[in-house]
Amino acid sequence: MSDSLKIGIAGLGIVGAGVVKILAGNSSTLAKKAGKKLQIVAVSARDKKKKRGIKLAGIKWHDSALALAKDPEIDVIVELIGGDKGVAYELCKTALKSGKHVVTANKALIAARGMELAELAEKNKVALLFEASVAGGIPIIKALKEGLAANNIKRVTGILNGTSNFILSAMADEGRPFDKVLREAQKLGYAESDPSFDINGKDAAHKLAILTALAHGCRINSEAIYTEGINNVSPDDIAYANELGFTIRPLSISRMSANGIEQRVHPSLVRKTEPIASVNGVLGAVLVECDQLGPAFFTGAGAGQGPTASAVVADIIDIASERYSLPFGVAVSKLAEAKFSGIENHKGSYYVRLNVKDKPGVLASITAAFSKQDIGVEAVLQKANTRNKTAQIALTTHHTNEKSIRKVLKNISEMEYVVETPHMIRIEEF
Amino acid sequence: MSDSLKIGIAGLGIVGAGVVKILAGNSSTLAKKAGKKLQIVAVSARDKKKKRGIKLAGIKWHDSALALAKDPEIDVIVELIGGDKGVAYELCKTALKSGKHVVTANKALIAARGMELAELAEKNKVALLFEASVAGGIPIIKALKEGLAANNIKRVTGILNGTSNFILSAMADEGRPFDKVLREAQKLGYAESDPSFDINGKDAAHKLAILTALAHGCRINSEAIYTEGINNVSPDDIAYANELGFTIRPLSISRMSANGIEQRVHPSLVRKTEPIASVNGVLGAVLVECDQLGPAFFTGAGAGQGPTASAVVADIIDIASERYSLPFGVAVSKLAEAKFSGIENHKGSYYVRLNVKDKPGVLASITAAFSKQDIGVEAVLQKANTRNKTAQIALTTHHTNEKSIRKVLKNISEMEYVVETPHMIRIEEF
Repeated sequence: MSDSLKIGIAGLGIVGAGVVKILAGNSSTLAKKAGKKLQIVAVSARDKKKKRGIKLAGIKWHDSALALAKDPEIDVIVELIGGDKGVAYELCKTALKSGKHVVTANKALIAARGMELAELAEKNKVALLFEASVAGGIPIIKALKEGLAANNIKRVTGILNGTSNFILSAMADEGRPFDKVLREAQKLGYAESDPSFDINGKDAAHKLAILTALAHGCRINSEAIYTEGINNVSPDDIAYANELGFTIRPLSISRMSANGIEQRVHPSLVRKTEPIASVNGVLGAVLVECDQLGPAFFTGAGAGQGPTASAVVADIIDIASERYSLPFGVAVSKLAEAKFSGIENHKGSYYVRLNVKDKPGVLASITAAFSKQDIGVEAVLQKANTRNKTAQIALTTHHTNEKSIRKVLKNISEMEYVVETPHMIRIEEF
Repeated sequence: MSDSLKIGIAGLGIVGAGVVKILAGNSSTLAKKAGKKLQIVAVSARDKKKKRGIKLAGIKWHDSALALAKDPEIDVIVELIGGDKGVAYELCKTALKSGKHVVTANKALIAARGMELAELAEKNKVALLFEASVAGGIPIIKALKEGLAANNIKRVTGILNGTSNFILSAMADEGRPFDKVLREAQKLGYAESDPSFDINGKDAAHKLAILTALAHGCRINSEAIYTEGINNVSPDDIAYANELGFTIRPLSISRMSANGIEQRVHPSLVRKTEPIASVNGVLGAVLVECDQLGPAFFTGAGAGQGPTASAVVADIIDIASERYSLPFGVAVSKLAEAKFSGIENHKGSYYVRLNVKDKPGVLASITAAFSKQDIGVEAVLQKANTRNKTAQIALTTHHTNEKSIRKVLKNISEMEYVVETPHMIRIEEF
């Protein structure tokens, strides 16, 4: 065992600079924890001249990230380039094949190529660690893979995208519409200039795919995820949900069901008394329902320089301490080829909002439409808009299923007094 | 590497039986995660004939737990006897010296002898793991040692004793006094027939001593802990705290301060908006304030058969996967000999409750006593008891320190219109 672990970092954006800062600023404490010095020997990034607020004196610079994988001095490659193909993928593949450990924060890459890369890591007896890829600094990958390993896991529910959670929280606090809050989030740096992957749920879906594999011991399937963005949630929905005792949260859910594993990313109504309902702003959270432990709940900063870099450095320390095993906790060959259940099989309660003409008998016809599909209505709010003689009806249902609710919404949308396509949000019960 | 890990269990109480159940009930999944079969080869307990609802056929029975340490077939000893000396200590010591790994749920033993046992484990290159010793199934030891290892930790705040938390929660829900709720807790099995270690904070102190060492990289010091039980908290305190915007929780706190590390176990007022204020009943929780990650919050079942056994089995899987390092994350020789700060140096805000004669001028004299010690009063509630012409005054202070608050309470207790020793509870701010 050498007396130092030699690190090569590819990508010096916000997270890369954070890793350099932690390793430089805290080196003697980290060396005690790692049992050896953690030494950055080489880095690579697009622009050598960019100001990053970090010292790189004495550290080799490679113009090509791929050169890091071939640098014989390096023990661990830290991949912080991003993207599920191109350089990030080539770098990780080549590094693992060359017998180098890999630490990455790249959820897109692990979601798309995690199985292949894990097999390479196994074959070459090196570590492939990706704690930073999900929920920033919350050590949820370690928890699922190691701390909760004695449990069969029934459901994992996460708030995995800070931008979405910030937007829904701010809409709730201030009653402002989605677009305005999004612009605010962009100003504050909580949302990218192109926020589509955050808003439409794709970012959360990548993370969910990884959590599913770890929680249920199956191969990653990032195709079999029902994904719905938060852009259709209106201030009205938030206000009605609040009156009905709920908060709207951007949930990512992986659940064992009779029809297979459900993977769903969509806005959800959550009862205000649930701990996950209180997770506000850019905070992340993961609730893991275990057969032995019961519910275990983890919250913390799900993104940002310090938190994400903290997860990357924890992985580096695990490698230095030789405290790692297989990337997914189980050999890839032994991960189950699981059956996944589509959203059409979903069972649960629903929130529905309708805009109707304000005429006698409308509410009666609507509730009749629900009972025709055998759906019990739990609570109803009706608010008249005298200006245009319409009314808004918000209601929650008892336990039912996706097919029935879609049927009733289709039937209602065809009724002549309905002035807008009915809007539905799933309720997640715990 | 053998194709099975051979386990000897000492102690077949609730947790021991739980470990047997998990290992038997889930053996093929666990073998996949562990990379080998997890096989109980021998057990030991006091009474061979006791009904435990577990199958022990084909497993060796040792009447003496110490015989397990000498059984050459055993790779891992699981110590579930309890106590900080006697058989538990001898067993762990002998096992480590014989080159066997040790997994234990014994907080008293680790708090008292953790340094010595960790040195033995290091010397013999075996694992000493004790996840189950703190916060049941919540993987907080792994989080502090591994997942959050990149961080300097400022404060760890835990609800580490389920019995105390159950009692304070039930008192708040039902407005009943301590003694009645304690009897209820005993009936429900949430409190022992002798609950003194739970109530007086000693049990939580053992756990806090372990968390301190892990969080701050120092040697365990289970003497330097200020410990105050929950038995002096009255229904009145809970009601006033509620009116003032607080909940009373049995907190265990380890905090870096200018005077050294504070270790405190005492009931605390916590603002209701803090996540830890919502941790009710027998749930456990740990809040870790990190320099990089910010606050990380973990909740889950802090006790009970399934949760505690889940932590024991996770440790066993870590050993099977060779995914362990030094017991305290840092070599014992490199743990700091930290300075600890006594309660007399504590700084913070306080809640005070007084019983006084209901006469004009009393409130004025009391507030004058506070300002004489330079203590600002933040909020005051006064309630008259017309029956005996007394009044109860509850107040919260601005930030001050332990010496000043004790001085003012002494001064007030000497005032002729004060009819009961003044009562004080610390406020924990986040």
